[in-house]
Amino acid sequence: MKVLLIGANGTLGRAVHAALAERGHDVVTASRTGADLYVDITDPDSIRALYEQAGPVDAVANAAGWVPWRPLGELTTADVRAGLEGKAVSQIELVRQGMDRLPAHGSFTLVTGILAREPLLTGSMASLANGAVEAFVRAAAIELPGRQRVNAVSPTVFEESLDAYGDTFAGFDAVPVRRAAAAYVKSVEGHRTGQVFRVE
Amino acid sequence: MKVLLIGANGTLGRAVHAALAERGHDVVTASRTGADLYVDITDPDSIRALYEQAGPVDAVANAAGWVPWRPLGELTTADVRAGLEGKAVSQIELVRQGMDRLPAHGSFTLVTGILAREPLLTGSMASLANGAVEAFVRAAAIELPGRQRVNAVSPTVFEESLDAYGDTFAGFDAVPVRRAAAAYVKSVEGHRTGQVFRVE
Repeated sequence: MKVLLIGANGTLGRAVHAALAERGHDVVTASRTGADLYVDITDPDSIRALYEQAGPVDAVANAAGWVPWRPLGELTTADVRAGLEGKAVSQIELVRQGMDRLPAHGSFTLVTGILAREPLLTGSMASLANGAVEAFVRAAAIELPGRQRVNAVSPTVFEESLDAYGDTFAGFDAVPVRRAAAAYVKSVEGHRTGQVFRVE
Repeated sequence: MKVLLIGANGTLGRAVHAALAERGHDVVTASRTGADLYVDITDPDSIRALYEQAGPVDAVANAAGWVPWRPLGELTTADVRAGLEGKAVSQIELVRQGMDRLPAHGSFTLVTGILAREPLLTGSMASLANGAVEAFVRAAAIELPGRQRVNAVSPTVFEESLDAYGDTFAGFDAVPVRRAAAAYVKSVEGHRTGQVFRVE
């Protein structure tokens, strides 16, 4: 399959790239820097340009998303909106603009994370955006055209990222990022839809 | 307790008002029309003015929220943003601005709905906003100051609203709105936090 992989240069994106390539898929990468194609998923016009440049694809896999991490008492209204734009509106836009472009067997795989179900101090915007996307995935699954599918991969912290997070995830079982990448393969090649694939 | 009830004039808000009054609480109502105080919860400045006018309150109970109901294929980016502003950013703003004003025993009760877990055609924005708020409630609960609490009431369709929705909720068990109102009482008078009280 031809797979458009967005956020291809992060820890997760690189692992998804390797896993998809290993399965023989033709991967077109997109990112803000250093990928086959440029995209800023927080800009709907940039997503439109991405789809035009990518041409026909069978599947869209997204590993990009950003939210502010700040104490609840320090969050501004702008932070709340930025978190929603950075991880929810952006991913919905990938589906919304992609559903008319992908074939009847096309699929979308989005990214959320364990904070949807297990909150952490300063992580309320991650929880918010992840919860939004997971509920959207369940809803969009019953409205996509043809046999198009949509799922989310919702991992806990990666072993490879533990150093960057310090004590934030104390007591959480970290997973190797290849396990999250495998969930993308399951979503892309499988036949399920409206699912949140927890990797923890 | 003195309870600030927002969205006091809808089917749910009226029932919550009756239930709180029956329990002896002093209810200050707010709405865009016909309540003690004016508020448009999609406007952060209006929420600020509301808190200033309401004075000290022990609890905030919200029964207001709006999202567009449209087929996924007809949704615009503006619809997505409007749905998030109308039911997610608005309710987060009530908590964000209220947490410094409410006393250490204060509580927030927000509203979501069954579409967070059971999607319906044209309801993807309801799912999205409800999922966002439910995850936020779990996250905010561990960051509120003092012993402040936050919960969501997540009802299915009300018997009193079935006519307005036509066949949309076909096969769903409708509940009398007084059951959802009782969940508000449970949230306001109880001691739990970070909970989604399902009424179905």
